[in-house]
Amino acid sequence: MRELLVYSPGEGERDLGRRILRLFREKQGGIVSGEELSCVLHVSRTAVWKQIKTLKELGFTITAVPSRGYRLLESPDLLIPAEIAAGLGTERIGASRLLCFRETDSTNEVAFRLAEEGAEEGTVVLAEAQRRGKGRLGRHWESPPGVNLYCSVILRPPILPHRASQLTFLSAVAVARAVAATTPLVPAIKWPNDVLVGGRKVAGLLNEMSAETEKVNFIVLGIGININMERSQFPPDLRHPASSLAIEAGGPVSRVAVTRALLAALDVLYDSYLSAGYGPVRNEWLARSAMAGRRVRVSFQESEVSGEVEGIDDDGALLMRCDDGRSERVLAGDVTLL
Amino acid sequence: MRELLVYSPGEGERDLGRRILRLFREKQGGIVSGEELSCVLHVSRTAVWKQIKTLKELGFTITAVPSRGYRLLESPDLLIPAEIAAGLGTERIGASRLLCFRETDSTNEVAFRLAEEGAEEGTVVLAEAQRRGKGRLGRHWESPPGVNLYCSVILRPPILPHRASQLTFLSAVAVARAVAATTPLVPAIKWPNDVLVGGRKVAGLLNEMSAETEKVNFIVLGIGININMERSQFPPDLRHPASSLAIEAGGPVSRVAVTRALLAALDVLYDSYLSAGYGPVRNEWLARSAMAGRRVRVSFQESEVSGEVEGIDDDGALLMRCDDGRSERVLAGDVTLL
Repeated sequence: MRELLVYSPGEGERDLGRRILRLFREKQGGIVSGEELSCVLHVSRTAVWKQIKTLKELGFTITAVPSRGYRLLESPDLLIPAEIAAGLGTERIGASRLLCFRETDSTNEVAFRLAEEGAEEGTVVLAEAQRRGKGRLGRHWESPPGVNLYCSVILRPPILPHRASQLTFLSAVAVARAVAATTPLVPAIKWPNDVLVGGRKVAGLLNEMSAETEKVNFIVLGIGININMERSQFPPDLRHPASSLAIEAGGPVSRVAVTRALLAALDVLYDSYLSAGYGPVRNEWLARSAMAGRRVRVSFQESEVSGEVEGIDDDGALLMRCDDGRSERVLAGDVTLL
Repeated sequence: MRELLVYSPGEGERDLGRRILRLFREKQGGIVSGEELSCVLHVSRTAVWKQIKTLKELGFTITAVPSRGYRLLESPDLLIPAEIAAGLGTERIGASRLLCFRETDSTNEVAFRLAEEGAEEGTVVLAEAQRRGKGRLGRHWESPPGVNLYCSVILRPPILPHRASQLTFLSAVAVARAVAATTPLVPAIKWPNDVLVGGRKVAGLLNEMSAETEKVNFIVLGIGININMERSQFPPDLRHPASSLAIEAGGPVSRVAVTRALLAALDVLYDSYLSAGYGPVRNEWLARSAMAGRRVRVSFQESEVSGEVEGIDDDGALLMRCDDGRSERVLAGDVTLL
């Protein structure tokens, strides 16, 4: 597990790599001398040289221009926490700590561990790639490097455990808002954990919690969005048709823009959830849902039920009017739209 | 965190301390020579000497008898896992792994961490003392050394998260059975997490879980029973009157006996829960409850409600007929019997 870059406001200005990148950007022609870097940043020439080396390892193309200094030719498409955080303006989400790993087993696992160690509400964990990305019910989440968003957010809501799934719906709404804000696409939410575009899955959610009977200790919202993944990168045996924002939009989508829009949406929605309760989230979920009024089949373990979707309940249950006339509250399962 | 003694069936015979204790017990007069120990156990004299030293540190009184060997004069009242496990005959609980720590922060924390690392269902964690014993809602659980039982059990039931509190009720029933089996006392269960004797709290339960929306990853049943705690050991500012089995019974109670009875009861009840569902547990809970038909006041955060107890619901809610005639499902709170 290698930490890529960390942003935390208090330590921001101590992050040498970030300050060097800013100097490059501010400089006409993109050339900065080693002496200038060393002088402006108040560090030794050796420290500058070491940091340039680290940036190269991260994928930045930096060349030495004889007798003039360094030139930044190309920045990699990385989720640099400082870039995401710059001007993010959120109250909670990503406001105190934003970590990005080049590769990790699972951002949810990292976030869960951090939360157990007391990490603040709003802590965000990102990764460029996951070795063992997790889907719901122990399933695998395809997590190739550099193209998607793998994001986990720590929340500490003062709610009873049976309300926890409300936050899955909240994150589905946030994903829908972020997609709508950064692409021309029309996202549709599918119960319980998916966001679709054109009937194909582009995002999945995995909400994990630590709780005692009467108290949620913390919740980790896990959010995976297929952003620039190509058709060839999807495994052939997927349960449901899947796609990416880039495939659906017909061109690449900025990962940083989607990430910032997502964190901003989560922040606003969570703030409203804490002050106004679940109502607004539920209404927006239903409005953005692919399901209200649709005929569906839900299968869970051995059982199966078909009928029309009427809504969702306070505890996250799918409310259905079954084909035989009965009303049913469905708490778990795989949905097929009929 | 220091591991006291570990019992796991596969490694049982490799536990030198346990084998030495057995030799002492089998030996007429209680004297065994170092040579005999070394020879019978196939280890060096130095290994024997080291283990004798460890046993002394654990509280065993072992003296050297010149030219004859070692003599075991007194065994401490310790929760020796091998003693608890001997002939326990359980199917799951304590069957694969039983750990006892001389002191730990919290057995629930140790068990939670073990469960995250994949520990088997039925793993039991005990401690002679807890530095930061946990009660419900972040409260403190008084955990002096050597007199009580601090026990955590890892379960991996195939249930949805909103059913998790059923296992708190299951453990309350198990505690009641264990108390009834090993003392002349009549225990009474109090919703949601207590077991009383004579109206005073002698045991508390703290159920913690890791879950995703549709799946319980694992549950840790935390069980604290005040066994031989003396009146002077209780803090003066307790929320509710508390006592111990020894105070109520008027004499010391065997900690090993209570522990074994508890694990056996958990094993039987959990087996029935998996095969027959929640019904039998709920019925026994109600039969052993201090509450059915009683008038109570429940306070939670700012709110308060009074009325008569009618039962408990599938999700653990207390069913009440309020004084104003309304029916109420209470999901969390502190109960006062009126």
